[in-house]
Amino acid sequence: MFKSAEMPQTLSKEDFKQLEPDLRTDLLKAQLQLIEEKKFSVLLVIAGMDGAGKNEAISRLHEWMDPRHLACNAYGEPTEEERLRPPFWRFWRDLPEKGEVSIVVGSWYQLPMRRHATCKCSKSEYELELVRINEFEEMLFNENVLILKFWFDLPLDEQKKRMKALAKKSRRVRHILEEWTRFMGDETARETVEEAAMRTSTAEAPWYVIPALDEEYRDIALGQIINSALRYRLERPEPESIAAPAIVAGTSHRSALDAIDLSAKLGRDEYEKELEHWQQELATLTDKKKFRDTALVAAFEGNDAAGKGGSIRRATRALDPRIYKVHPIAAPSDEEKARPYLWRFWRRIPRKGRIAIFDRSWYGRVLVERIEGYCTEADWMRAYNEINEFERQLVEDDIVVAKFWLAISEEEQLARFKAREETAYKQFKITDEDWRNRLKWGAYAVAAGDMIDRTSTSAAPWTLVSAEDKRHARVTVLKTLCKQLKKAL
Amino acid sequence: MFKSAEMPQTLSKEDFKQLEPDLRTDLLKAQLQLIEEKKFSVLLVIAGMDGAGKNEAISRLHEWMDPRHLACNAYGEPTEEERLRPPFWRFWRDLPEKGEVSIVVGSWYQLPMRRHATCKCSKSEYELELVRINEFEEMLFNENVLILKFWFDLPLDEQKKRMKALAKKSRRVRHILEEWTRFMGDETARETVEEAAMRTSTAEAPWYVIPALDEEYRDIALGQIINSALRYRLERPEPESIAAPAIVAGTSHRSALDAIDLSAKLGRDEYEKELEHWQQELATLTDKKKFRDTALVAAFEGNDAAGKGGSIRRATRALDPRIYKVHPIAAPSDEEKARPYLWRFWRRIPRKGRIAIFDRSWYGRVLVERIEGYCTEADWMRAYNEINEFERQLVEDDIVVAKFWLAISEEEQLARFKAREETAYKQFKITDEDWRNRLKWGAYAVAAGDMIDRTSTSAAPWTLVSAEDKRHARVTVLKTLCKQLKKAL
Repeated sequence: MFKSAEMPQTLSKEDFKQLEPDLRTDLLKAQLQLIEEKKFSVLLVIAGMDGAGKNEAISRLHEWMDPRHLACNAYGEPTEEERLRPPFWRFWRDLPEKGEVSIVVGSWYQLPMRRHATCKCSKSEYELELVRINEFEEMLFNENVLILKFWFDLPLDEQKKRMKALAKKSRRVRHILEEWTRFMGDETARETVEEAAMRTSTAEAPWYVIPALDEEYRDIALGQIINSALRYRLERPEPESIAAPAIVAGTSHRSALDAIDLSAKLGRDEYEKELEHWQQELATLTDKKKFRDTALVAAFEGNDAAGKGGSIRRATRALDPRIYKVHPIAAPSDEEKARPYLWRFWRRIPRKGRIAIFDRSWYGRVLVERIEGYCTEADWMRAYNEINEFERQLVEDDIVVAKFWLAISEEEQLARFKAREETAYKQFKITDEDWRNRLKWGAYAVAAGDMIDRTSTSAAPWTLVSAEDKRHARVTVLKTLCKQLKKAL
Repeated sequence: MFKSAEMPQTLSKEDFKQLEPDLRTDLLKAQLQLIEEKKFSVLLVIAGMDGAGKNEAISRLHEWMDPRHLACNAYGEPTEEERLRPPFWRFWRDLPEKGEVSIVVGSWYQLPMRRHATCKCSKSEYELELVRINEFEEMLFNENVLILKFWFDLPLDEQKKRMKALAKKSRRVRHILEEWTRFMGDETARETVEEAAMRTSTAEAPWYVIPALDEEYRDIALGQIINSALRYRLERPEPESIAAPAIVAGTSHRSALDAIDLSAKLGRDEYEKELEHWQQELATLTDKKKFRDTALVAAFEGNDAAGKGGSIRRATRALDPRIYKVHPIAAPSDEEKARPYLWRFWRRIPRKGRIAIFDRSWYGRVLVERIEGYCTEADWMRAYNEINEFERQLVEDDIVVAKFWLAISEEEQLARFKAREETAYKQFKITDEDWRNRLKWGAYAVAAGDMIDRTSTSAAPWTLVSAEDKRHARVTVLKTLCKQLKKAL
């Protein structure tokens, strides 16, 4: 992959002048079609050592394309805000909308590569990181992001020469050069890069090595690759259908939901006692100094009228309002619709020491979106894995993930719907849509069963709560939160 | 204002039970109308010492109202992300959309009040802070935010008793209590609160003192005030018209723009030399350690085709992509449209050590929005003051604000429009809208003249640049940026 890049590739100034106008026109036309159709977004990952002219090439792209729809996101050392969240958070938050192009400098490759090159992680740890990058990029690919990755390559001697020159002017480069001299034998550095290129150059997100010795050649090569990739993607028909139909359990299949004991009850006196006890426990746990090294993400799902709101309020009443936020999940905004499905949850991930409670959650993808056909079968089928990966990242970053399914019987729901219609201040809780959803009770049961099956992980387990008796449900939720927190602290 | 609050105000449990259902229904109806009409948003500032039951009252509001459209934003010590930006940034970023209600705990009053009560600022400094809060709230009022501010009050003895009890359970309260005992004579504390209430209880954003000794009384009083304020605002006709018509200079009036010497030119050789010199200077200045204590916000405005993009690229080429971001300003997103006009610029304010370049800016309010009638006369008239206040906050937070007006003649614009139509890769830069705007040359000249007059402050001056010769414009921009930065460092 790097062999041809090491050959001296050049382009004369005259050839450049001849090639540039057509390339520019083509590139711009492709971009305008992209802006017009808004079918996908583009991520251009620009990597390579300092001195290879990344900045100059980026500047050229801004000249060639419509810069109003071209953003450059460059990442250095993570900020406090970023350090207090999972590593991918900062890349998620900057993802471009459909129709937009975003250049990424200092991408998700930077930290793992640097750690490996400076001997701070083993080869197998490095490989695992690269596997996770693949999963991340695959998900973006499926969510209509075109990812092109460029490695700007220079012969080693030239690279060192250029870095030394740059180091005179820039503190940052000086620091990198020191690190480089200390750790990176030429061999390790090359191995780090080659390993990454080999393991992560996938059909979904290919790497391109750009010989960067000659700046005319470099920019034309970059422009041509972007141009042809854009064109290819613009002409590609809509996402191909899935390989196999969804394997859905029949309605006769008994799911985990059927095992919930709906007869569980709690008397008023015991309830008051338990409630106070667990609220105090929750307050104490979240006030501990150690809690500042973790965070809590709680997701509430369940049948309509199962009492999610009431359970959430019993929990938040015990909490310092400075540290928690409740996120009711309704329809996405246009900024959210234009980005991958999980983006709107990433943007709400709490920093360390904080709590985010989701009243309905990312599981909407495999519940309402599946049933109402808001996404394709392929979309919700791959969502199980994406969600598991999403939660794994949270847990790995020491965030406690608690997931509750609040269950009631069909009869109890009917009784509550009717009660809501009869009480003036509860009428807002019941709409025609609730009655329509009720007609789909069976479909929701199947979808919820599949969901529990496919997303119960040991790191982020589901808690199935009988909510037929509200008191029982509220205390169970509080108790579970406390137990999960206690285990983590 | 506090006298009546010191009287023992109580409500029996029976009276509460009788009042609650109707109040709840009314409150909810009002909220549903708010959600439906999306005409304004609501900020409920909840203040008062710990122990007065703020958290309990907030929880009650969540029970009474539709919690999916009710958020609670509570602020403690500023995070790094927040400390590196102007003080109001964190409140701006959480502003609710129209139709939504947001409860604010630990509001913009907290820090000034605490500083004053702990003798860290003089009385006049405190008064000045309160004046600025008034300006901030007035702007929100004008941007369709209903602000209600509540002070939960307790008799002093009771307050101390409750805080001591709380301190046993919470590290935070313990800390506040220590500070309180060390600094706050009862007199200073009361004076701090009274001063704030007196100076900032305006028609636009009134304070309400809630006697909080009795929790039934407390919650009913809170609910009733919110209910009647919501109702009043829902029934209020659309914003009243302005007091006086806009004072607009006639077209014969010579504005600052007429003084720009459009004949300024730069030869190619001198251009190359100067360009390199100032680019190097810019790179050096922004690489300095001291730059990390400041930030740069640059706004580019000017006639269509004046070459804003080209000038911006000549500057960014000199910069480390990790530290700058270019924000092309087009139509606002729906999340932006639902919030005060300046919100979309606040959310893009750079942290310390970073640079934000705006290709078109907040001045759109007094240019295109004024001319096309996208906002009312009252809106753009008050925008001058709001913008000055906005920039003052940036400058006060040690951010360098550079504003450029790039001017060309009507004839030069025509020539450039034609050239754009003739070059394939430039066609995207010229649209029917550009030709339509050109017909309004006179109106834009008047609006730009007014803008320069009213928003040239010594802290954030306009630089008027002749862009008839592109080379001259680019070098002038670079040179000005360097000079403003140098002065600041």
